[in-house]
Amino acid sequence: MRIGVLTGGGDCPGLNAVIRAIVRKGVQDHGHDFIGFKDGWRGPLHGSAVPLGIPAVRGILPRGGTILGSSRTNPFKEPDGVRRITENLAEHGVDALIAIGGEDTLGVAARLSTEYGVRCVGVPKTIDNDLSATDYTFGFDTAVNIATEAIDRLHTTAESHMRVLVVEVMGRHAGWIALHSGLAGGANVILVPEVRFDVDEVCGWVASRFRASYAPIVVVAEGAMPQDGDLVLKNAATPLDSFGHVRLSGVGEWLAKEIESRTGKEARTTVLGHVQRGGTPSAFDRWLATRFGLHAIAAVRDGDFGVMVALRGADIVRVPLGEATARLKTVPLPLYEEAKTFFG
Amino acid sequence: MRIGVLTGGGDCPGLNAVIRAIVRKGVQDHGHDFIGFKDGWRGPLHGSAVPLGIPAVRGILPRGGTILGSSRTNPFKEPDGVRRITENLAEHGVDALIAIGGEDTLGVAARLSTEYGVRCVGVPKTIDNDLSATDYTFGFDTAVNIATEAIDRLHTTAESHMRVLVVEVMGRHAGWIALHSGLAGGANVILVPEVRFDVDEVCGWVASRFRASYAPIVVVAEGAMPQDGDLVLKNAATPLDSFGHVRLSGVGEWLAKEIESRTGKEARTTVLGHVQRGGTPSAFDRWLATRFGLHAIAAVRDGDFGVMVALRGADIVRVPLGEATARLKTVPLPLYEEAKTFFG
Amino acid sequence: MRIGVLTGGGDCPGLNAVIRAIVRKGVQDHGHDFIGFKDGWRGPLHGSAVPLGIPAVRGILPRGGTILGSSRTNPFKEPDGVRRITENLAEHGVDALIAIGGEDTLGVAARLSTEYGVRCVGVPKTIDNDLSATDYTFGFDTAVNIATEAIDRLHTTAESHMRVLVVEVMGRHAGWIALHSGLAGGANVILVPEVRFDVDEVCGWVASRFRASYAPIVVVAEGAMPQDGDLVLKNAATPLDSFGHVRLSGVGEWLAKEIESRTGKEARTTVLGHVQRGGTPSAFDRWLATRFGLHAIAAVRDGDFGVMVALRGADIVRVPLGEATARLKTVPLPLYEEAKTFFG
Amino acid sequence: MRIGVLTGGGDCPGLNAVIRAIVRKGVQDHGHDFIGFKDGWRGPLHGSAVPLGIPAVRGILPRGGTILGSSRTNPFKEPDGVRRITENLAEHGVDALIAIGGEDTLGVAARLSTEYGVRCVGVPKTIDNDLSATDYTFGFDTAVNIATEAIDRLHTTAESHMRVLVVEVMGRHAGWIALHSGLAGGANVILVPEVRFDVDEVCGWVASRFRASYAPIVVVAEGAMPQDGDLVLKNAATPLDSFGHVRLSGVGEWLAKEIESRTGKEARTTVLGHVQRGGTPSAFDRWLATRFGLHAIAAVRDGDFGVMVALRGADIVRVPLGEATARLKTVPLPLYEEAKTFFG
Repeated sequence: MRIGVLTGGGDCPGLNAVIRAIVRKGVQDHGHDFIGFKDGWRGPLHGSAVPLGIPAVRGILPRGGTILGSSRTNPFKEPDGVRRITENLAEHGVDALIAIGGEDTLGVAARLSTEYGVRCVGVPKTIDNDLSATDYTFGFDTAVNIATEAIDRLHTTAESHMRVLVVEVMGRHAGWIALHSGLAGGANVILVPEVRFDVDEVCGWVASRFRASYAPIVVVAEGAMPQDGDLVLKNAATPLDSFGHVRLSGVGEWLAKEIESRTGKEARTTVLGHVQRGGTPSAFDRWLATRFGLHAIAAVRDGDFGVMVALRGADIVRVPLGEATARLKTVPLPLYEEAKTFFG
Repeated sequence: MRIGVLTGGGDCPGLNAVIRAIVRKGVQDHGHDFIGFKDGWRGPLHGSAVPLGIPAVRGILPRGGTILGSSRTNPFKEPDGVRRITENLAEHGVDALIAIGGEDTLGVAARLSTEYGVRCVGVPKTIDNDLSATDYTFGFDTAVNIATEAIDRLHTTAESHMRVLVVEVMGRHAGWIALHSGLAGGANVILVPEVRFDVDEVCGWVASRFRASYAPIVVVAEGAMPQDGDLVLKNAATPLDSFGHVRLSGVGEWLAKEIESRTGKEARTTVLGHVQRGGTPSAFDRWLATRFGLHAIAAVRDGDFGVMVALRGADIVRVPLGEATARLKTVPLPLYEEAKTFFG
Repeated sequence: MRIGVLTGGGDCPGLNAVIRAIVRKGVQDHGHDFIGFKDGWRGPLHGSAVPLGIPAVRGILPRGGTILGSSRTNPFKEPDGVRRITENLAEHGVDALIAIGGEDTLGVAARLSTEYGVRCVGVPKTIDNDLSATDYTFGFDTAVNIATEAIDRLHTTAESHMRVLVVEVMGRHAGWIALHSGLAGGANVILVPEVRFDVDEVCGWVASRFRASYAPIVVVAEGAMPQDGDLVLKNAATPLDSFGHVRLSGVGEWLAKEIESRTGKEARTTVLGHVQRGGTPSAFDRWLATRFGLHAIAAVRDGDFGVMVALRGADIVRVPLGEATARLKTVPLPLYEEAKTFFG
Repeated sequence: MRIGVLTGGGDCPGLNAVIRAIVRKGVQDHGHDFIGFKDGWRGPLHGSAVPLGIPAVRGILPRGGTILGSSRTNPFKEPDGVRRITENLAEHGVDALIAIGGEDTLGVAARLSTEYGVRCVGVPKTIDNDLSATDYTFGFDTAVNIATEAIDRLHTTAESHMRVLVVEVMGRHAGWIALHSGLAGGANVILVPEVRFDVDEVCGWVASRFRASYAPIVVVAEGAMPQDGDLVLKNAATPLDSFGHVRLSGVGEWLAKEIESRTGKEARTTVLGHVQRGGTPSAFDRWLATRFGLHAIAAVRDGDFGVMVALRGADIVRVPLGEATARLKTVPLPLYEEAKTFFG
């Protein structure tokens, strides 16, 4: 049996661990033959593939990134995309396809599976941990560890100078990284995209922390918004345009400026950025990614296509690909409220 | 309301995070008053206690160990133990007791609760992750990260000298640390207490790894046993006795010697020991410990005594204290078989 | 003998280790009595001081920041500054003063010593490693380790998406952090304040890296400048002003935009910022800071005032305070040229 | 020009960084051609070599171990060793040889150079930092960081259970790792091979620490000896013999047992072992190793053979190979006395 593998979307620690587990188990236990498609769906679209044997996956377990490359290419938006993909799969003799990716990548797999009969198994990947069908996704734990270590370090700078430190972490639509790293790092305010924040309330927490003779750390998800956020962003956006892709004034910088002007205390911003998604995966992420890979092969063995592997408690289960990406998993309000014990 | 807190058993990263969460939430949200009993059950037994306010828990979130000290004292084995405890609790005006500990510590809490009406809430703590009522316990993730990092480092030594490296990790009765760190670290053999190992089979995996021109890493839980283990241990035990507590010849060293004599390859042992259970907790463990603390206070608020907080998926639930410690959670055979894909 | 201690300037991992060593040695070996002045020179200026005994320094060795607080207050710029300081020192019965800080802090100590006879010993502190009188200063090694770990992580993101990643590290006037972390992290371009860079040449290195099928990492010190830098900065500065302190467009972001527009390759920026100077010191920095503290006390014991302790090879020596801060230690051109082996 | 490279002795983080720098500079700047001899001097002895171009050194900078393998083979102890080496070098057309290693490896290079005219350049490698001709060697900083992190972790275990923790670190003849990690980790006793220790004095420090209500950490170099050490070792050695290579009772375990029996306090031992010499090098070690590699090529370019590169302050210098290994650099007594401020 010949199996294709691809990785799509933003990179994420653990991708290589999934690939390695798939190949090790597929080759050793089942005698499968693998090819790796390059750069997400661009690979099968353009017929760009590499052989993927055991030598290719030696030593990649602890390495971040993906040996197959990645892209955000969506074949449904390309002329003749689906036809080209099915033809290329046929030409390479591919019997089944394992797609590792997030909402977009798996959404393509779901449609190819349902509408075009392509035999797909999905492996969920989102550093933001925002897929509803799985308790956790790999990469998230690594990101939270990196953000927490940064917050640990920033505490001492904040204390030494009695400054406010605003830390902007990843999370455009879901605040999981902010919530977990904020709790783990002992942040004094945590702001998530799910709940619009009131700058004056934030300043109140900041002031209360200073009254206790400590310096506040504010963790803010990149997608968090003030209550009057749309207005603010329209204004703040002006200087950005001339620079294109670079986010010159994210919510972190904007918030630091507001805190400074409203409380009179010095405030500084750190935008953690890409360091959160690169480098060697944490032990948990290696373990989860490895198990996802093993179970993807088990699904192939069982002829169980159109499914995604998922974590439930300490078990790996399978869920229909269509359901898997149907709903964004955001931070529930009660959980966010729970964290407020530590605000201020 | 006055609440007593104690920590029992072996130390474990995250204990301080639990204590902090309990006190922060109890004082701020409910106006509770706290006292900390020193050194596990020895504290209420001897009436040894300290006040536990918010200043006492400042800055302890990232610190390993426990500010309350710990012991393995069991009041049911002390003369008049239960009476002394109930008297001391009364004398200190304690309305409820939160006990943080493993099987033994919580077993005492269960009996005090059921048989003597002491109002107890339990928080599970076992670095070995072997309590069946909870998906994970804090401390385990930290231990697995430390063991994985050590295995990462040992790979390069093994490769440079083409030696076998045997890494002995914690786990007397359950192989969770060995299994997770072995998978995450890319070990070539993983041995757990749940499955007796055949030394010749181990040597076969070792030889197969050398044939592929790589050097093998063998991860062995301290409680793992060869198939003819009892005999071996009787002999090996002889030199230990005169030294008391120090384990002169653990299974790791014994196994390295056996591998060396049967395969003719150099073998070395590293016993990770206490470094696995000390120091700053991982982000996951801080998050879990913090949530356990918050939910212990919620149980007190609800008058829900005789329970232990537990993790199910991403949720915190409550289970009866009696059930909580009834059954050891060991590595199931199918899960161990799953890992064998990477052996050899 | 009563000795005052203060820490000035930006915070730096290792300050607490110096304070601890000073107090431990001073109290135990010489029976000195210590007071800590708060927030740099603001402390003796305002008479703000705390007792500094052995209990105060317990457990601070591994902690970043400074238990004494810091500031950039310069008494020579305050009305009556010197008189107030000498009066406050006299009032507190201070026989000698140990000042831990960088160019500014030690410059004050030098003048107080030379012009006003205040008995001062200096301990050098600059995370940028730019004091000419000492081979290394503490904090630098920690910053380089943090930056290197970040670069390690960014490699995998760069490779997975075949993007340029620009990493902006500390170093306004000296490029030591950029040079060391760039070499240690395997950067493909390193830009330092000492040598103006040619954007086209940078783009050439970037292109050459892509031709070899690898993604480039560009490490740039915050003070690095393009050859036509003044012009650029004047323009880029416009949008910054309205935001005050926040650096909206540092050289990193500017350079990423230039690379993107000139090479057509995606480029992203990470500004490491304050995480480089917070948190627990590396082993080297703890060792160096500890030895600086011990030798500062030795200088006091010898009545050798007006000096600064310094590292030469593996030895601690003393240099006159005046010389110590006279000249900035910048990256010499030949050393920078040496690093170019790895460019492109 | 064709240059041979080999790595000898125990593995050490940074070896790959040296190899990479040699090849990158040699190929790019000088057009040299490289071959790598396998497994130390065994390579040229048996003519076992691999081509060593830029592709072979891609990505190895952060990796521990050595891609060339290592051994302790000494050609002067092999029949016809020197003749076989010179013949093999001639056969491979080798014009110069860069030997990376410690006392033994460089001792061979020195003799080959002086007595047989082989054109050698040496690069010093010893994780123990005990070569007198260089301020530091790569690998040492990594080992000290690992040991320090372990000591940090052990503090919390010691405190929680009020136990003595004895940490045995590397250092058979020189106590540099013990001294640096002990100082950096805040150990309460540090024992080095250079100074025989008095167990009763050690117990005195331990008791004094307990009186201050803290738990002691004792760092002991593997080569440290009690004052009546020879006797002790003869007895302790008995049970070791039957196990061959495994050190069943090192000085750490012996000392813990002695402390326990003399003070009545529980004592535990952790033997750090091979984790100290494996895995990714610290930033300092990568920087130093890289610079050693660049300067080895500079020596070749200058026709300056029979030398070893060395670190002096922040500069790389050259010293005659013969001198380089003539004298062991041990911890001087005054430096050890300096550390005693923190004992007890």
